Amino acid sequence: MHLNGRARIGFDLASPGPGRFRAINPATGAELEPEFHSATDKEIDRSASLAAEAFASYSRVSAHDRANFLRTIARNIEDLGEALVDRATSETALPPDRIRSERGRTANQLRLFADVLEEGSWVDARIDRADPERKPIPKPDVRSMLRPLGPVVVFGASNFPLAFSVAGGDTASALAAGNPVIVKAHPAHPGTSELVANAIVDAAQSCGMPNGVFSLIFDEGTRAGTALVQHPAIQAVGFTGSRAGGTKLMRLAQSRPEPIPFYAEMSSTNPVFILPGALRERGPQIAKGLHVSFTLGAGQFCTKPGIVLTEDSPEAGALAKGLGELLEDSGSFVLLTKSVHSAYASGLKNRGRTSHCIANHAAVSDPGLRASAAVFESTGASFLANPDLAEELFGPTTLLVRCSTRAQLLQVARNLEGQLTATLHATDQDLAAYADLVAILEQKVGRILVNGFPTGVEVGYAMVHGGPFPATSDSRATSVGTRAILRFARPVCYQTFPTAALPLELQDANPLAIWRMIDGKLTREAIVESSLQHV
Amino acid sequence: MHLNGRARIGFDLASPGPGRFRAINPATGAELEPEFHSATDKEIDRSASLAAEAFASYSRVSAHDRANFLRTIARNIEDLGEALVDRATSETALPPDRIRSERGRTANQLRLFADVLEEGSWVDARIDRADPERKPIPKPDVRSMLRPLGPVVVFGASNFPLAFSVAGGDTASALAAGNPVIVKAHPAHPGTSELVANAIVDAAQSCGMPNGVFSLIFDEGTRAGTALVQHPAIQAVGFTGSRAGGTKLMRLAQSRPEPIPFYAEMSSTNPVFILPGALRERGPQIAKGLHVSFTLGAGQFCTKPGIVLTEDSPEAGALAKGLGELLEDSGSFVLLTKSVHSAYASGLKNRGRTSHCIANHAAVSDPGLRASAAVFESTGASFLANPDLAEELFGPTTLLVRCSTRAQLLQVARNLEGQLTATLHATDQDLAAYADLVAILEQKVGRILVNGFPTGVEVGYAMVHGGPFPATSDSRATSVGTRAILRFARPVCYQTFPTAALPLELQDANPLAIWRMIDGKLTREAIVESSLQHV
Repeated sequence: MHLNGRARIGFDLASPGPGRFRAINPATGAELEPEFHSATDKEIDRSASLAAEAFASYSRVSAHDRANFLRTIARNIEDLGEALVDRATSETALPPDRIRSERGRTANQLRLFADVLEEGSWVDARIDRADPERKPIPKPDVRSMLRPLGPVVVFGASNFPLAFSVAGGDTASALAAGNPVIVKAHPAHPGTSELVANAIVDAAQSCGMPNGVFSLIFDEGTRAGTALVQHPAIQAVGFTGSRAGGTKLMRLAQSRPEPIPFYAEMSSTNPVFILPGALRERGPQIAKGLHVSFTLGAGQFCTKPGIVLTEDSPEAGALAKGLGELLEDSGSFVLLTKSVHSAYASGLKNRGRTSHCIANHAAVSDPGLRASAAVFESTGASFLANPDLAEELFGPTTLLVRCSTRAQLLQVARNLEGQLTATLHATDQDLAAYADLVAILEQKVGRILVNGFPTGVEVGYAMVHGGPFPATSDSRATSVGTRAILRFARPVCYQTFPTAALPLELQDANPLAIWRMIDGKLTREAIVESSLQHV
Repeated sequence: MHLNGRARIGFDLASPGPGRFRAINPATGAELEPEFHSATDKEIDRSASLAAEAFASYSRVSAHDRANFLRTIARNIEDLGEALVDRATSETALPPDRIRSERGRTANQLRLFADVLEEGSWVDARIDRADPERKPIPKPDVRSMLRPLGPVVVFGASNFPLAFSVAGGDTASALAAGNPVIVKAHPAHPGTSELVANAIVDAAQSCGMPNGVFSLIFDEGTRAGTALVQHPAIQAVGFTGSRAGGTKLMRLAQSRPEPIPFYAEMSSTNPVFILPGALRERGPQIAKGLHVSFTLGAGQFCTKPGIVLTEDSPEAGALAKGLGELLEDSGSFVLLTKSVHSAYASGLKNRGRTSHCIANHAAVSDPGLRASAAVFESTGASFLANPDLAEELFGPTTLLVRCSTRAQLLQVARNLEGQLTATLHATDQDLAAYADLVAILEQKVGRILVNGFPTGVEVGYAMVHGGPFPATSDSRATSVGTRAILRFARPVCYQTFPTAALPLELQDANPLAIWRMIDGKLTREAIVESSLQHV
């Protein structure tokens, strides 16, 4: 499939600009064709003003038509077939089956948001009927619902070339809510990004969406992203990436003359607490699950279990030994990018200074970005004394922390920064005995799992992929699951509007047959009398 | 009723500290007894750590018991009787009937949140049932709901000594969501604040709530507020006040090592657009309504209509003349505080430099903080050329802007900053002809009114009292209405939890009989089978 290597500014291809870069195959180190052209400042500005123009009409496209648009994008992505799989595999070194399953997830996610639009309750439509008889003054008719924010910028992530990139969860939820989207492609997979962008632009054109509803920007560095976050037309940002990068962009978004919502999913060590009963009952089984989980995708998931906590015991020693043995069966891994690879290498070195390396499979660094798995071990006291041990280390490694007492385990939990997840391996008795630990974790994380592993995030209605800082920049939001749409909308209230001037969602007849809150009660019924009746 | 003049740190009275100040009667300029003591740094820290301790238990108090707590606060405030009215009147110069009606609003608001807790759908409970048969991997049971954030700091507002102060909407919604609250009292009405704080503390004790669920801090300056916003135990802030003060605190909240949600309601000119048909049909009637609205409460409402826009016409001239005549019947006004009074005086002076003063009732500045109403007039071109005319001027004044053309009117609308409200006076024909104006305003404001006036904010389910920056610091939120509770909560997800370890809201049996989303469908039914059944 032919690649142009040029940005998409609305429906148009950008001109071939002066800034150029190529993707690299992480498995071989080879540069891939073609050259990609970084967008010029003028093109970036044009994408933003085109998005602002598109907002005027796209924000008024019906829920049904937006659902159709999302479903068309899903089908177009599937129709890219093996060309997409081949390109994504060569740009990421992720196995073809992983790419196929990620493609399925991406398409299903778009369809799920289409379902959400048609079900309609997400807009939180509310109607407080008028009461002309109220004393001392009549009560007016007040209605409100969520409306889109405006143009949204999305930063593609390196570790999910499809599901958290050009047509990933951020884009799907922002488009679903009625916002135009400008994607800053991750420079590690520009070809994959271009293919998916074509699928979106084709869908926009075939569904009659306005020019500017979607643009794709290339840039190897930070110039384009910085300019987009600061552009006055941009009203919100979705980001998945590093803590340093996310925090920097967050500060930019906050220090604009008009600050805007900024959603970064950044950094998490996803602590796993193995409680005494569970450790006694099924330590070896837990070790196996942990090994799979922290090496899955070469340990490059934001939900990778990076810290494993136990109280000290003979079984805890056996767990460490077991994990070390499992590592012998780990082959070598290919990491996504040069920067991930070098951060992993230096991270392992640093970690070795403050904790004991119990297993480090011999590194093979050639050809490509190869690395081996490693397991470290520390005591609770040493973990508390060395804050660097609590930092995320991207790649196939984890750290066992053996606490001397239950009290120390709780102290470690209290000292944790915000996390996407925490996991408990626990018997029912453990859970009852550690209710205080559960209460601490509830304040620290977005998702608590019992007897599972944090990798593998279900895309559904109830999922929360978020958490307190630094897991994300906004603990009120999730970037996975249908609640993600709420990030890109705000309530707008209509007082004493003639029904014809109201959005369909708020009209008396409830033409979309959605759930609404009328005078405080949830109902799908139409309103027969707009005013309260007094007998 | 006896006043101590001392902060409440949880259930305890603070010691009389070195920093002291007194309230002033704005109508007379007289200092009021007693002296109030600014909280010391140690007391501020103690209030925050006590709140953090209280959070562990208060966040687990049942919805029913929190509802009871809120209703007890409401009753206790009502039981303060005329002592509260007398004190609030002498501290604010607001008329006793206004204070009584604000007390009613405050109590009703607390009871409304109690209703919200018992109805229960606000927690957005969601359950995605397990599917053990799913291929390639089983689907886990995933459940989630909104949980409280942690200790919240609330800044009392000068212009609503009850409804936006110690037990106002911020406190009511934060307590309702399950968060301890520390109120920084506005120094203009410390006596009123102390009385209401006593009502809350008494309710907390009689309802068995934990010590630290509520504290009240006095400080004449900014030291206490600054320390509270930066305190690591604090997880969110609600503020109502000036743009300068709100923006400064917003920056502090954002630049913490762990940034926290910050909700400031700050600045709005609440533009009123009088469209040609409505102006022709009922210009004089609109002028009367405007006069009442911009002088109500001495023009010290955040929803005061500060800008009135028309296209130029003979009727627009008559409107200006009519407003000028109505001003002759305006008596003099007493403003709330010295700083409001001096800002109003200098604001009028500045405004006179860039616009034409068509009526300024002779100022009476003695005794007390007296001021007169004023109306200014400008052209659309001059308004666009002088950005200071678009700034909020607190007090009984408004600015008429006569635009030369429809296009200029739209340009002025596009140039507006974010607003709490915009109002249209319009016939049905006007509304149809100005659909583009409505679309512009929808992006600029939290609430759009047709043929009404923005002052008088209904406390209900559908109200939105918010809007894009600088109207508020977070356009996704409202500080009035039941949606205000959403500001102080975040989603937490429980994966594969035994049902007994789940919050009641998420248990299979639905013991609270609340609305929940199960596999994407809203229902109040219990779950009989936790897993999807395959036939």
